[in-house]
Amino acid sequence: MRVNAYAAPAAGEPLAPTTIERRAVGPNDVLIKIQYAGICHSDIHTVRGDWGAQPFPVVPGHEIVGTVLEVGDQVTKHQVGTRVGVGCLVNSCGKCSSCVRGDEQYCLDGAVGTYAAEDRDGTFTHGGYSTHVVVDADFVVTVPDGLDPAAAAPLLCAGITTYSPLRHWDAGPGTKVAVVGLGGLGHMAVKLAHALGAEVTVLSQSLKKQEDGLKLGADHYFATSDPATFTELASSFDLIINTVSASVDVNAYLGLLALDGTLVNVGAPPKPMRVNAMSLIGARRSFAGSMIGGIAQTQEMLDFCAEHGIVSEIEVIAADQINEAYERVLASDVRYRFVIDVSTLD
Amino acid sequence: MRVNAYAAPAAGEPLAPTTIERRAVGPNDVLIKIQYAGICHSDIHTVRGDWGAQPFPVVPGHEIVGTVLEVGDQVTKHQVGTRVGVGCLVNSCGKCSSCVRGDEQYCLDGAVGTYAAEDRDGTFTHGGYSTHVVVDADFVVTVPDGLDPAAAAPLLCAGITTYSPLRHWDAGPGTKVAVVGLGGLGHMAVKLAHALGAEVTVLSQSLKKQEDGLKLGADHYFATSDPATFTELASSFDLIINTVSASVDVNAYLGLLALDGTLVNVGAPPKPMRVNAMSLIGARRSFAGSMIGGIAQTQEMLDFCAEHGIVSEIEVIAADQINEAYERVLASDVRYRFVIDVSTLD
Repeated sequence: MRVNAYAAPAAGEPLAPTTIERRAVGPNDVLIKIQYAGICHSDIHTVRGDWGAQPFPVVPGHEIVGTVLEVGDQVTKHQVGTRVGVGCLVNSCGKCSSCVRGDEQYCLDGAVGTYAAEDRDGTFTHGGYSTHVVVDADFVVTVPDGLDPAAAAPLLCAGITTYSPLRHWDAGPGTKVAVVGLGGLGHMAVKLAHALGAEVTVLSQSLKKQEDGLKLGADHYFATSDPATFTELASSFDLIINTVSASVDVNAYLGLLALDGTLVNVGAPPKPMRVNAMSLIGARRSFAGSMIGGIAQTQEMLDFCAEHGIVSEIEVIAADQINEAYERVLASDVRYRFVIDVSTLD
Repeated sequence: MRVNAYAAPAAGEPLAPTTIERRAVGPNDVLIKIQYAGICHSDIHTVRGDWGAQPFPVVPGHEIVGTVLEVGDQVTKHQVGTRVGVGCLVNSCGKCSSCVRGDEQYCLDGAVGTYAAEDRDGTFTHGGYSTHVVVDADFVVTVPDGLDPAAAAPLLCAGITTYSPLRHWDAGPGTKVAVVGLGGLGHMAVKLAHALGAEVTVLSQSLKKQEDGLKLGADHYFATSDPATFTELASSFDLIINTVSASVDVNAYLGLLALDGTLVNVGAPPKPMRVNAMSLIGARRSFAGSMIGGIAQTQEMLDFCAEHGIVSEIEVIAADQINEAYERVLASDVRYRFVIDVSTLD
């Protein structure tokens, strides 16, 4: 099946329209007509070659919402016509200890990414910047009716990437959570942490987005460019979600953690971070990392979002605006996520 | 009360006999006749000035075992004649959230160290290299009868420093624990983790102490000088206790952690450690620190040791051998802890 797509032909080159092959629907596959695909910073890193060589042409997109067009013989989980989502993973071994406990993102055999990854059949995956996709039913989640499909798309990566550590480290009533950075990931972290019942503080470079932050559900908002922030908030948070992929002063943020607090990186700065042992030892603090979430937890997150009326703040664009959108993401000029209206690819 | 002691007169100078003043026994105080005092690497760091300026003369020693000579009017917890211990702390605010939950070592107002620290009355504390000490009863623990008093002394620092993170991070049956470094702290970590029911692996520079390690309770023993160790043991431990205070390749050790595993530093290398975000993110790993333990947990640890017949492996020395012992500690020439027979100071 040949379908329209937008692809990066080589590292650093602009994305352009093309067609790609989608596999025939296997017994456990779902064929999805894609409606919306979010633009994640990872898409940009990948096509620019920041993360090493890629199997070009690359069709990015791992925040996918669409409707089921066809299902394989053995599929019972999804029905034709229902609204579904696909996130960052489309396969994993299913047998290792991580997969068995539902943490497919940490598959010991290597989970298969939604694009630019070698699938278990030896082909390379292509993502959501295309009209259709065929995905193993086990990696397809249901998007509840209550959620706007365009605004729900970013939940599949930005949503689960922040929801998973918030749940793993028990954000909830009585806990103080800080979110570093108010971008695509950060604004979801604020909404989700607030809905989970935590007291939420945004730590942003400046106060430029303060009004937004408070509207999104933050209780407090501080500028990290002001050194007083780090003295005023010393030893006060149970959990800090760092959504910034640029290098930050990790020790300064560790100093904001209370006894037994955890700083979790969900972004990966390219350079090693310098950690002082005393920043950890002085209050039994932890510095941790977290990567997206498992399939069951992604479904849980979508259901939680439907229950609490949570979606991403988005700007919908046509496919021919993707390159321009990339520039604006790099300039932090988006509040807070671009979503491609994939019908513009038909 | 004037008592004999061994003190460092200035940074880097050898320790020498002297006399020091001990305060009168207050209503909540305990006067202890010291029998044994362990030599901790911290003692050496402190008197050499590695950790900054100190209120010389400094009388080190925070692994103290002795008998109660006198108690204040309000003391009900300890009786004259019983065997007691004092560890790294002799005071704390008692009111902050850390103290209230029994984590006095993380007192937000600053816990008072057993030596070279300003006490809450403005005087400076002197440690266990002396014949007597007066300590607030709340910071004195009971040394169970079953424990050899000399070999129990190192439990007060080396024991609790390793017991506390083992308990905090749930070492026990079904968990795989690695101990980095087989010195004063490491040999206690091995004994305690084994007694807690964990599968224990020693990661030591060489195989020199392998026979010892296995005798102490380790199930496996690997040399970190062999690069194959890091591939063979990749992603296998739930908890790694790093007892080495020198700089190590943190990312290499993080790579040995299974999903959700934690690397805990109980030593503090002087230089910042370089951590790659992907070392954490790739398997939701944590890099943490832990500092000694609270008073209630210290008592729990001593009771646990009595129940399981655990003490430190020691070499008893006379007070006039302290400087020589320091040299041997610095040369890693001790299996595994020097303990001063304080009666040689009488």
